Amino acid sequence: MSRQLHLNAFLMSSGHHEAAWRLPESDPYADIDIDHWRRIARIAEEGKFDSLFLADGLVVWKGIEHRPGGQLEPTILLAVLATATDHIGLIATASTTYNEPYNLARRFASLDHASGGRAGWNIVTTAGADAARNFGLEDRPDHLDRYRRAAEFVDISRRLWDSWDDDARDADKAAGRYIDPANVHDVHHSGTYYRVAGALNVPRPPQGHPLLVQAGSSEDGKDFAARYADAVFTAHQTLADAQHFYADLKARAADAGRDPGSVIILPGIVPILGATEAEAQAKAQQLEDLINPVVGLQQLASVLEIPQERLELNEQLPDDIPDSDTIDGAQSRSKLIVQLARREQLTVREPIGRLGGGRGHFTFIGTYQQAADVIQDWFENGAADGFNVMGAALPSGLREFVDHVTPILQDRGLFRREYTGRTLREHYGLPRPLNLYQQGHVVAESSTAGAAQLAS
Amino acid sequence: MSRQLHLNAFLMSSGHHEAAWRLPESDPYADIDIDHWRRIARIAEEGKFDSLFLADGLVVWKGIEHRPGGQLEPTILLAVLATATDHIGLIATASTTYNEPYNLARRFASLDHASGGRAGWNIVTTAGADAARNFGLEDRPDHLDRYRRAAEFVDISRRLWDSWDDDARDADKAAGRYIDPANVHDVHHSGTYYRVAGALNVPRPPQGHPLLVQAGSSEDGKDFAARYADAVFTAHQTLADAQHFYADLKARAADAGRDPGSVIILPGIVPILGATEAEAQAKAQQLEDLINPVVGLQQLASVLEIPQERLELNEQLPDDIPDSDTIDGAQSRSKLIVQLARREQLTVREPIGRLGGGRGHFTFIGTYQQAADVIQDWFENGAADGFNVMGAALPSGLREFVDHVTPILQDRGLFRREYTGRTLREHYGLPRPLNLYQQGHVVAESSTAGAAQLAS
Repeated sequence: MSRQLHLNAFLMSSGHHEAAWRLPESDPYADIDIDHWRRIARIAEEGKFDSLFLADGLVVWKGIEHRPGGQLEPTILLAVLATATDHIGLIATASTTYNEPYNLARRFASLDHASGGRAGWNIVTTAGADAARNFGLEDRPDHLDRYRRAAEFVDISRRLWDSWDDDARDADKAAGRYIDPANVHDVHHSGTYYRVAGALNVPRPPQGHPLLVQAGSSEDGKDFAARYADAVFTAHQTLADAQHFYADLKARAADAGRDPGSVIILPGIVPILGATEAEAQAKAQQLEDLINPVVGLQQLASVLEIPQERLELNEQLPDDIPDSDTIDGAQSRSKLIVQLARREQLTVREPIGRLGGGRGHFTFIGTYQQAADVIQDWFENGAADGFNVMGAALPSGLREFVDHVTPILQDRGLFRREYTGRTLREHYGLPRPLNLYQQGHVVAESSTAGAAQLAS
Repeated sequence: MSRQLHLNAFLMSSGHHEAAWRLPESDPYADIDIDHWRRIARIAEEGKFDSLFLADGLVVWKGIEHRPGGQLEPTILLAVLATATDHIGLIATASTTYNEPYNLARRFASLDHASGGRAGWNIVTTAGADAARNFGLEDRPDHLDRYRRAAEFVDISRRLWDSWDDDARDADKAAGRYIDPANVHDVHHSGTYYRVAGALNVPRPPQGHPLLVQAGSSEDGKDFAARYADAVFTAHQTLADAQHFYADLKARAADAGRDPGSVIILPGIVPILGATEAEAQAKAQQLEDLINPVVGLQQLASVLEIPQERLELNEQLPDDIPDSDTIDGAQSRSKLIVQLARREQLTVREPIGRLGGGRGHFTFIGTYQQAADVIQDWFENGAADGFNVMGAALPSGLREFVDHVTPILQDRGLFRREYTGRTLREHYGLPRPLNLYQQGHVVAESSTAGAAQLAS
């Protein structure tokens, strides 16, 4: 069988377009409607998607006056969706900056058990200062520090997941022996940011480790992904940018001693589709007309980290907005928007439209056939191993993709017609990680310095 | 209708008797078998229990060589069980010492939304030094400090749950106005242990606040319960002890300015039952024969916080074991065991049997009728508002209770035949808390000192 495309369904209450909640079809309170989430999860599974994904933040989103700003905690919601589906992988975002490794490793291990090996963790470091202030800090830790902390957090998590041997459980009822204690390993971690002494209180997850996903595209983020990620979510506006990122990340993975094929790269795509181009354009226009430019200004100013007053809807971006490398937040997103606006000499109104449509992700407006062509083009030309499909409106955007685009990809032999794997790792064609303890890869007393060893 | 009894089903993998996993009926790995959990949840709901409950710890339990020592994270498991049931309340244990208020308040709010208002939180402070060492500490914080931290944690959680007005969501699609920002309140908490600036990113839970449960019976624990708890789990060996606790806690609630009727007191009962006394005794004997005395010694020594070598199976407890008030762990449990052993002049072997049967909870061995009599006796004589039913073996212990004891209680008019409420609070006959912000009970800048105000 030829190389197969991977598809992730990035779910978001009424949809990824910020005005989607205003569409006639939308329930503005879809975010707390469990039936809504079940419905879209089942559509994604019907379409044989590898996985579905929930983003997260630890604040009420800015601009709540004009768009939904809350969301249920993703691991809880995924546990619910695990029971509504049988095959599809379930990926939740969780922050390494504002959780304890023992608690979070355990939640993902529990989700992996509860779903029969379908859990994935999108590892984020949480950029915002407003989030920091919900967790006792005056400001966020700096960018590099957050990534160092994340690396140590993931090292510990992998040890915790491996702290029970795969065959640890050898209960003998007659003898009254539940487990050989030699099969359960205290992790004895004492590092720069964390100390964790004992073993996890959950047996090794069905997948060994939940799938690890990463989505930051800063330099620190790419190095982190190269070292740890099984799958990478990324945002590009052009084939050339996506190709550059793809080659760069695969090379970094090789430099980190990994098989580049074991890092699955999934650019985002916001498909706005129709049977004809005119139909697709009409849908796009309907959504754009619903964007409130005031909200767009707030949003753009927030991403660029400049006062809103510095932006004028009908003028280009100010020349002196900070170079993105000095922005300690969502670095790569900021760079992307500035580059796009300068390259195309856009007035502020236009990047607002693009941001509103998918927060900097690639918005594709066209026919089903054209969407399949673009996907195939990126897939076959070194830009993607698959896509992170972001319905502009939900469930309709996903329904349409599954009904009209997926069959084309299947007919072209690019995408599965049935699930052949059982676990999320199997969907992505990735092996189950060996147990570090059983492989003798972990020395008794670990430290952060020892962590690099884990990646080899 | 006469005063109604409340029943909580305290679930634990193969059962509360430590040797239950060795019974022929038991799957030793029931703890990670989601179908097993679904099955017992549905039995509890069939029996019209008010709620089911999952305990928790943040370590591999001691003695894993001889009994199950892991468990899935309770909020994840409850999210799964929410989808397997329609009515029953869902209570999870979570620690205030090793979580962040913003994260945990959000998880319970999410669970309350996902279950249609059925979430409860058993608030624990986590006694063990071994747990502390999984969270970067050398030793646990001291007892009083843990309870002060818990009080501030719950104060913040209540503000976070109330940070969205009940009718906050007033979306106007045509106007593009999602919410009036005046309906969402930043909590601005700056206290002794925590600082939390913003509003929760989840709308107010269906119950207003999840049901708050407390189970520590130390002096600090009782004061905490009197101030915060909607329901209290407790352990007593005799009617007299239970009456004393009941009167004491209701008085403390009144002292804290609360209606004593709004604090539901639920002693534990481990029913080992049969159609005849002989049948029940045979079951009890079967379980006792399966206890490994070596494990029992470990367990007793751990609870009493003395070296295991100081205990001899066929002798009484040493005279000089520390007075329980100096034990900074599970204070009340320790006191209970010492008192029981001294009162009845037991050899060490005997408290081990009682501990193994229900960790210090009241083990009742007898007929269905006798069990119903004891329950009614405690309920009608100032010892209990209901019971925390702890099946010695599961699912059989719960199945038997639901099939044979519940109908007697129903026939006597003591217990519901059908659910009449929709939420967990409604099952317990408790009102939905008013929103502190909408009542004007919260001043703009809060502090720990201001917290007492919340209880009034």
